[in-house]
Amino acid sequence: MSLTLNALVNHQVRLAARPVGLPQASDWQHTTEAVAEPAEGGVLVKTLALSLDPAMRGWMNEGKSYIPPVGIGEVMRAGGVGVVVASRNAGFAVGDTVSGGPGVQEYWLVPADQVQRSGLVKIDLRAGTLTQWLNVLGMPGMTGYFGLMDVGQPQAGETVVVSGAAGAVGQTVGQLAKLKGCRVVGIAGGAAKCEWVVNELGFDACIDYKGGSVKDGLKAHCPQGVDIYFDNVGGEILDTVLTRINRKARIIICGAISQYNNTTPVQGPKNYLSLLVNRARMEGIVVFDYASRYHLAVAELAGYLRDGRMKSKEDVVTGGVAAFPGALGKLFTGENFGKLVLHVAD
Amino acid sequence: MSLTLNALVNHQVRLAARPVGLPQASDWQHTTEAVAEPAEGGVLVKTLALSLDPAMRGWMNEGKSYIPPVGIGEVMRAGGVGVVVASRNAGFAVGDTVSGGPGVQEYWLVPADQVQRSGLVKIDLRAGTLTQWLNVLGMPGMTGYFGLMDVGQPQAGETVVVSGAAGAVGQTVGQLAKLKGCRVVGIAGGAAKCEWVVNELGFDACIDYKGGSVKDGLKAHCPQGVDIYFDNVGGEILDTVLTRINRKARIIICGAISQYNNTTPVQGPKNYLSLLVNRARMEGIVVFDYASRYHLAVAELAGYLRDGRMKSKEDVVTGGVAAFPGALGKLFTGENFGKLVLHVAD
Repeated sequence: MSLTLNALVNHQVRLAARPVGLPQASDWQHTTEAVAEPAEGGVLVKTLALSLDPAMRGWMNEGKSYIPPVGIGEVMRAGGVGVVVASRNAGFAVGDTVSGGPGVQEYWLVPADQVQRSGLVKIDLRAGTLTQWLNVLGMPGMTGYFGLMDVGQPQAGETVVVSGAAGAVGQTVGQLAKLKGCRVVGIAGGAAKCEWVVNELGFDACIDYKGGSVKDGLKAHCPQGVDIYFDNVGGEILDTVLTRINRKARIIICGAISQYNNTTPVQGPKNYLSLLVNRARMEGIVVFDYASRYHLAVAELAGYLRDGRMKSKEDVVTGGVAAFPGALGKLFTGENFGKLVLHVAD
Repeated sequence: MSLTLNALVNHQVRLAARPVGLPQASDWQHTTEAVAEPAEGGVLVKTLALSLDPAMRGWMNEGKSYIPPVGIGEVMRAGGVGVVVASRNAGFAVGDTVSGGPGVQEYWLVPADQVQRSGLVKIDLRAGTLTQWLNVLGMPGMTGYFGLMDVGQPQAGETVVVSGAAGAVGQTVGQLAKLKGCRVVGIAGGAAKCEWVVNELGFDACIDYKGGSVKDGLKAHCPQGVDIYFDNVGGEILDTVLTRINRKARIIICGAISQYNNTTPVQGPKNYLSLLVNRARMEGIVVFDYASRYHLAVAELAGYLRDGRMKSKEDVVTGGVAAFPGALGKLFTGENFGKLVLHVAD
């Protein structure tokens, strides 16, 4: 095996500079390294697919956040799925399918002392496909699940609005809210996404923010007001939803993709005093806090996938790690349709 | 008694126009009416003192809020304390001291069908003075109590920051948080208020926002970060506190006096994504929701007043209802020092 490994080359994408606004090609550096064998207790994973997420944009910025920024010159952080190609760890065997945080590179060498804290876990392809393990059964699914259930606490009959409805988090949130007996209204960009969200995922309605007024859409589709708003976008849409919330409404702040590439200050929600008038609550969620309960959410969501009560859609970009910079850009223009995944190897 | 009542004149202040920005003299109309006797089940209250509150500014605006706006031509809404001067209601006797919502007028006739829903209640002057019943034992005290305890849920050892610290709500919040074992840092305008808050009320520190940088003050006085922020002011101060909050922080949105007289849109908190990074929560409070538990809070707070563990300060303006328009202006310039009260009669 050592002979085989030594012959392999690991292509990587590193952060070369902190982007100003939208990331540019010059913000990335493409490097190659020889693949090394794992030492005692370590594991070598071959990356099969990477998860491309809006949160990545935040990781490129300097400053205090919920995790440290990616350092200049470091391999870009990324979640992904892969297969174990060498192991000196009793918990992992060659051929095991795993998920974790390989970063944007073709091979991920996990030293013994990082196996646990890196989040490396075996995944079961009977519960979901590889790409579903990056979507409903992965970080986006976990984010949607715990954001909706723990922070939102939906009650049957309530109205749930979710932005980025066709995205990775949005599709989980909306379908789960339907399963919990809520009226669900999505907000997405473009007629195709809206039709899919309603016709395929079973949302009650979807508002195309590119094709009309979100305010009018909320009036039409949320006649009983909004009890829960799961916000992935921030900006004007958050402000508009704030004008339609009910008493004791819950607003889950999951992200603000409309603001991530701003070169001007973030747009604060000028209608935040609606929280006062309505005794409502706006609360942030970071998925890592729920790691000890991921297995429970995965079990529930895998059940829904199995019996067809939940669907998933992944937008798979090909081209391997070299295609990463271009693929990431699709997130910020809204070009992706479904969870954005980068195919790296078969 | 009827003879006496008929001889009395009721001076009133009515809303003449919806203010744009700071209320002007022309927004008010001064009227007089004969005082009428109560019909069966009704009560006639002579106003002794009125509560002047930042919330009044919101009541003057058109639009949906937590209570309907004051109508043009209507007596301005106001809480107050008074004495029963005529009663045909078995629950109230002539001479009873009461609190409720007399509005800005010298006599308040409460018809039978409004006695209960008007909030008219007898008050016990052994528990607190008349003006304390408009302060710690009144709406501001109830707002501070339930906002801090129910929404903030302070734990001993946590750091609590409160803006408008020398104001009616702020003084209750800060002293109560100290009694619950928290580190308490006030934000107030001017050295005199800050000294009083620290030396008289026992706050650990107070930041004079007129005399220096709130950011530097928070760094200096909240070395462990901010766990609870009780916000009465909004604007820049809210944004600055958002940069200093801890994980799982609670921000109680009680008001935004810095924004009430804006003629431009409200300034939204551009640092709201700190809620996400810190898994923190921003929640509005409206005191009326806690009416069924006022008596419990009053009993606790009256105990603190009695044994000297809590102090109160009221800024009493004289001149009767005619002085109302000028007195209200003091709130928005921050001229008042302590809970602003308008003396109406002895």
